[in-house]
Amino acid sequence: MTDIASSYRRGVPLPQAYRLLNHGPTVLVSAAHGGRRNVMAAAWAMPLDFDPPKVTVVIDKNTFTRTLIEASGSFALSVPCRVLADATYAAGSLSGAERSDKFADCGLAHFTAQRIEAPLIEGCVAWLECRVIAGPHEHHHQQAYDLFVAEVLAAQADERVFADGRWRADSPPELRTLHHQGGGAFFVAGETVQAKKPAA
Amino acid sequence: MTDIASSYRRGVPLPQAYRLLNHGPTVLVSAAHGGRRNVMAAAWAMPLDFDPPKVTVVIDKNTFTRTLIEASGSFALSVPCRVLADATYAAGSLSGAERSDKFADCGLAHFTAQRIEAPLIEGCVAWLECRVIAGPHEHHHQQAYDLFVAEVLAAQADERVFADGRWRADSPPELRTLHHQGGGAFFVAGETVQAKKPAA
Repeated sequence: MTDIASSYRRGVPLPQAYRLLNHGPTVLVSAAHGGRRNVMAAAWAMPLDFDPPKVTVVIDKNTFTRTLIEASGSFALSVPCRVLADATYAAGSLSGAERSDKFADCGLAHFTAQRIEAPLIEGCVAWLECRVIAGPHEHHHQQAYDLFVAEVLAAQADERVFADGRWRADSPPELRTLHHQGGGAFFVAGETVQAKKPAA
Repeated sequence: MTDIASSYRRGVPLPQAYRLLNHGPTVLVSAAHGGRRNVMAAAWAMPLDFDPPKVTVVIDKNTFTRTLIEASGSFALSVPCRVLADATYAAGSLSGAERSDKFADCGLAHFTAQRIEAPLIEGCVAWLECRVIAGPHEHHHQQAYDLFVAEVLAAQADERVFADGRWRADSPPELRTLHHQGGGAFFVAGETVQAKKPAA
């Protein structure tokens, strides 16, 4: 597939990777194992540490993506933008377990990651490649809360929206991140306000 | 203190409480114990379950708020809005350990919660009262990741921005939620887009 957006994709230094999720966007979670792959939407994802960067994300037991994550030990988070609102809602509504190609059914294309088998999602504005942290306590939280903890191995962002470690205030409206309210309604990231530095 | 905003505050049924955080806003975390109280800002907070509602939040070991949470077993999350951008940044920058009143120093007022000792923050648009879930695995995640899991005991929201279980698309600009990018720069929640329901 021709990747028009790839010319804007830039590596993000790992100590800055947390900023890709810091403002609370909805993400697409993708995974692959043994020749199968899948993608789902998740509103419950956030940074967990700065350097080395970690993230945490809630992934329901009923999802096919979780099966692939548990088998492969890794997943990708891709941060969708306004033009992908319909596709993101579809990824959060349809199950990939009985589909030959959920990506196509959702209108999503994908490309190869740098460090993991999971594919990254075309047209998104940021990407994090993650390896699940395994251990007895982590396993408990996966079972009790569907909560996965992972280390970020690689990160990229579209330079039109994120450059020099910061989200750009002048990014195009169609490339703004999505923040799921529920039922397919999303807030689009709006204007940037800069708070005053507090007196010490 | 006169509470002008209180006339707009409404109880939120617990099964809808997750929606107050679903779109990824930055929150103010407050706690109280033994006559002392404090407040801090946190960008790393999210829902963890629907009903009974749970949340998870990262609270650094170096914060005075954490000391109060560990002593009391509870905390409140208040969701600030645009008019509180400076105060939110101050709450995330200043330490309350050596201040007689960090609330005043940040320009924040507070009022009494329904179920817990922690105060709720005036001028915010949503409030969740939370009880920490204790256990050996939860304790591990507090120590290893600064990650707290808690059950939501009570929730309220300002009816001008959240009504009938939904964020309102027509809420006033100054009452829109904040989404921290870093360094005191926040995205303000922008317009609402409704995604198309996917074909089954």
